[in-house]
Amino acid sequence: MVAAGGLDIARFFLALAAILVAAKLLGELAERIGQPAVLGELVAGVLLGGSVLGVVPAEGVPAQMIHVLAELGVLLLLFEIGLETDLREMFRVGPASLAVAVVGVVVPFGLGYAYWMYAPHPAAGLGDLTTSAIFVGATLTATSVGITARVLSDLGRMATPEARIIIGAAVIDDVLGLVILSVVSGVAAGAAVTVLGVLRTLAVAVGFLVVAVLVGRFLVPRLFDVVVRMRVRYVLLTFAVAFALGLSSLASVAGSALIIGAFAAGIILSGTNQFDTIEREVHPLAAIFAPIFFVSVGASVDLRLLNPALPSSRGTLVVAGALVVIAIVGKVAAGWAAPWAPMRRLVVGVGMVPRGEVGLIFADIGRRSGVLPPDVFGAVLLMIMVTTFVAPPGLKAVFGRREESAG
Amino acid sequence: MVAAGGLDIARFFLALAAILVAAKLLGELAERIGQPAVLGELVAGVLLGGSVLGVVPAEGVPAQMIHVLAELGVLLLLFEIGLETDLREMFRVGPASLAVAVVGVVVPFGLGYAYWMYAPHPAAGLGDLTTSAIFVGATLTATSVGITARVLSDLGRMATPEARIIIGAAVIDDVLGLVILSVVSGVAAGAAVTVLGVLRTLAVAVGFLVVAVLVGRFLVPRLFDVVVRMRVRYVLLTFAVAFALGLSSLASVAGSALIIGAFAAGIILSGTNQFDTIEREVHPLAAIFAPIFFVSVGASVDLRLLNPALPSSRGTLVVAGALVVIAIVGKVAAGWAAPWAPMRRLVVGVGMVPRGEVGLIFADIGRRSGVLPPDVFGAVLLMIMVTTFVAPPGLKAVFGRREESAG
Repeated sequence: MVAAGGLDIARFFLALAAILVAAKLLGELAERIGQPAVLGELVAGVLLGGSVLGVVPAEGVPAQMIHVLAELGVLLLLFEIGLETDLREMFRVGPASLAVAVVGVVVPFGLGYAYWMYAPHPAAGLGDLTTSAIFVGATLTATSVGITARVLSDLGRMATPEARIIIGAAVIDDVLGLVILSVVSGVAAGAAVTVLGVLRTLAVAVGFLVVAVLVGRFLVPRLFDVVVRMRVRYVLLTFAVAFALGLSSLASVAGSALIIGAFAAGIILSGTNQFDTIEREVHPLAAIFAPIFFVSVGASVDLRLLNPALPSSRGTLVVAGALVVIAIVGKVAAGWAAPWAPMRRLVVGVGMVPRGEVGLIFADIGRRSGVLPPDVFGAVLLMIMVTTFVAPPGLKAVFGRREESAG
Repeated sequence: MVAAGGLDIARFFLALAAILVAAKLLGELAERIGQPAVLGELVAGVLLGGSVLGVVPAEGVPAQMIHVLAELGVLLLLFEIGLETDLREMFRVGPASLAVAVVGVVVPFGLGYAYWMYAPHPAAGLGDLTTSAIFVGATLTATSVGITARVLSDLGRMATPEARIIIGAAVIDDVLGLVILSVVSGVAAGAAVTVLGVLRTLAVAVGFLVVAVLVGRFLVPRLFDVVVRMRVRYVLLTFAVAFALGLSSLASVAGSALIIGAFAAGIILSGTNQFDTIEREVHPLAAIFAPIFFVSVGASVDLRLLNPALPSSRGTLVVAGALVVIAIVGKVAAGWAAPWAPMRRLVVGVGMVPRGEVGLIFADIGRRSGVLPPDVFGAVLLMIMVTTFVAPPGLKAVFGRREESAG
């Protein structure tokens, strides 16, 4: 009650209520016009964001609170997806996922780097051209596993081989993204980047996932057979959520990403005997918090960047247009990366298109270190926005065509 | 991932995981030794708090985050209790609740005021004696509806007439507490307190509750009959939680308290046709967040205040002892306030004993304005702690005796 250390709780809760209601109303509208609900939640974010209504807090402690609740939302979402993941099926599609991920990182990075080095473009960074080209390339690499997973789930396609390959590739993307992040951070700080350092980052990120799942699948089911004998209310759910939070933190400390820890926690708990209860009780939690993530992604969109009447935004729009083409072409090409796998290649390619959190992090490091000037930063933001907004209807369209294709 | 504006999310999520696990483990231990689980959660808070392990963040943005999640927890708890409340039954016990609340506010206030004015005690405030006596009296008035409701729920006694009278009286207590708060804040600021001003505060607080429930019970069921026709997932739950958040904010803006708004939201939604679904889906949410509130109450306990070996704490302990006696006698006496009502008077009296949030707010205003010196503030904290920790086993003991008494 009243204010607590500068934070007006009543006002914050009112903003939260508005976020939840707007997410559901626009999600419903999206579904009624045949689109995935997540598209409506993103649009709700744009409307509630600083460009239009300014309901989503943009700075200070309330903004940090929304950020934490959004992270909790994407964490619960990945945890839920992990719970629904059949580990055996994932291993079966593993090589295809790996090929899709690697091609989907290398091609957009290469095209982005080449565009910045050799094509004419209006803006130049503060540092040398090579450094800013590396940054531009890096922002094009990582698929947003959160967006893609929600679209697949909205379309009711989570159990298809394409969905498994996409989710697997998006998770591998995040691991590769961490490696690129360490390189890019080093470049921004002016440090020498060694092959050994890159390999160490890769080993830590991959090692964490493998060790966590192997050890966890052995130990955790035994732990939960004890937990289930406790009498206090909702003890399974509480331990499951605490496990997801704890493994996410551990992943982050070990140099991996929070959401990879949450995904691993879900995969581990899918091997427990109490799996059904946990999954049923996690659903309402994820349903409340995940939309906060998508609304806050939408709220970060600055609509002024889209106005061609403003002279300042014309150059940005040109660069953004080029980046969008590279972003889409690069990831769609990745759909053809695994010629042996029986899958609809266009579906996989389109499914990899949305960029999100990781691209935003790269862009933000570049902006703060001065490597990316404001207009290039704006162009990267636009590219991330467009790929995010294009993917839900795109995936719906290609999945909707119902062709039975094996390449 | 990484840090966002000074907040280390990984570290925060780890603390959250520790809070959830400790709450359930000590809650289980409490149940095994025949006590309500909430007692274990409070003890978990003491262990995780600054006095022992220091796991619960005590300052800065992480502490504010925990505070917001704790408020969300007590809000969801009161919402859940409102959902389970039979409004007709509440009206039936209304006069008894009102009598219990008024006596339970007047007697402890009068005794506390008289003790401070006329009995010898070691400490004196900065202001005049009357002002500090008003503050000491005020901190003794408001029952913690959160603690009491959880104990009753842990004991499986929520459906008894005593529980209804206690919950009703505790909610009225909070309304009276708001009136006292406005008086006390005025006294602290040196403003003149007028009868008209006090009556206005009372009218706003009562008026909000009455208007919200009357209007809400008419309009909201019609709204939810439309909401239920929407297709997006968990739309009922999301609208219900948003309604609780929104009405809580509105209550706070209208000069009432967040938790009164949440309770009113629950009562209103208990009149919808979709009530069963909402209640079933709210349970897991409240189960995850409510323990954060109880752990953070426990974490605010400073164990050094309890050490009689420290000379500085001896005077505090003497004053605290006197306040505890007044706090318990005053509320137990309230059990006999409604001689016409068929209820077990000792159960109602003991159920009103725990003090909490509102008492802490009064004490904090007194400390910050200099009216209560640190040792008296410490004594008030001790009184709140002891009444909170005494109530769960006390209520269990008197409810456990199973005597059929009607006074």
